[in-house]
Amino acid sequence: MRLHGYFRSTASYRVRIALNLKGLAYEQAFVRLREGEQRAPAFLARNPQGLVPALELDDGAVLTQSLAICEYLDDVHPEPPLLPRDAAQRARVRAVAQVIACDTHPVQNLKVLDRLRALGLAEEQVTAWARTTIDEGLDACDRLIAGAGGRYCFGDEVTLGDICLVPQLFNARRFGVDLRWPRLVQVEAACLALPAFAQAVPERQPDAP
Amino acid sequence: MRLHGYFRSTASYRVRIALNLKGLAYEQAFVRLREGEQRAPAFLARNPQGLVPALELDDGAVLTQSLAICEYLDDVHPEPPLLPRDAAQRARVRAVAQVIACDTHPVQNLKVLDRLRALGLAEEQVTAWARTTIDEGLDACDRLIAGAGGRYCFGDEVTLGDICLVPQLFNARRFGVDLRWPRLVQVEAACLALPAFAQAVPERQPDAP
Repeated sequence: MRLHGYFRSTASYRVRIALNLKGLAYEQAFVRLREGEQRAPAFLARNPQGLVPALELDDGAVLTQSLAICEYLDDVHPEPPLLPRDAAQRARVRAVAQVIACDTHPVQNLKVLDRLRALGLAEEQVTAWARTTIDEGLDACDRLIAGAGGRYCFGDEVTLGDICLVPQLFNARRFGVDLRWPRLVQVEAACLALPAFAQAVPERQPDAP
Repeated sequence: MRLHGYFRSTASYRVRIALNLKGLAYEQAFVRLREGEQRAPAFLARNPQGLVPALELDDGAVLTQSLAICEYLDDVHPEPPLLPRDAAQRARVRAVAQVIACDTHPVQNLKVLDRLRALGLAEEQVTAWARTTIDEGLDACDRLIAGAGGRYCFGDEVTLGDICLVPQLFNARRFGVDLRWPRLVQVEAACLALPAFAQAVPERQPDAP
């Protein structure tokens, strides 16, 4: 398999964690977002949406959207599971993943911030936009996992919630968000103690500066 | 079950379709977004994220995030399935759903547009923002389903892709987006010919004006 991604893309980061948790070997191909390579015809032929990540399977098929890719990996390689067995618990885990992957990251990604700049907003307004978005998203996650104990978001097994949370905390730090949620920071530390997470961090990727 | 939603929320609309497709009876409770009822303590106690929809189960548990709710319904009531059996095909369907539920709708929802207004953007800039976002999202969907034939997004069975597409096309019309994708409009017409979709449209909900 070949993962088309970018070291600092949190959506790519999610898929790297999932691949590592499943113990799957993969090559990486790098799409330099700041240079606009995601809009080059060669990449658009793989993913017409022009976004990373895209996972190229051994048969040449290309899968897109980080959560869809993670669920695919979980469907094809069920161990260790990324979702609990109980349906309501699965829904809770997916909800936290979607708070991040739907309501948080897409509202503060490079594309949206560039659109705000193009509309004439000052850099401090753009940064404030990103911070507010991330703050609200992480605060919702903190409340949604409040009832669940354990080392990770939902107990003592890593789930898709952790796979989304840890990259979003990386982004929070990039934008100078006050990390006012002790539980989220504890979960992050527990995750980053695992090789699957530690090897997926942006600064350890070959395309990092 | 009781669905807390709003007639014009496309995320609520998705869940109404899924409930109808599964043939499940449900009550509706209405959260008037324009009046800010999603931020009232009574609602935040149900969904700390302050967003609709929220599905209250018969045991009092509350599920949030429309895609997580749809997948829950599919887990608990497998017939008719909302996703194909083949793992790569499931990933393709989920990807289209996520193009809409992650990259499109959250970037053009009421909350984001109100933030743009608060930053001093003119109403035509706000509308242009919504139109561009929706146009790009629908165009990506059109390309991602281009290889699949059939009446619906992916063949002759309704999937989670259709459940997301039809409400997003409703939003596209609201914002005056040029519907330049004949295939998407055909899929929409095929879906709206089904009672599960027809009964879920915003204008038929009890809280519609």
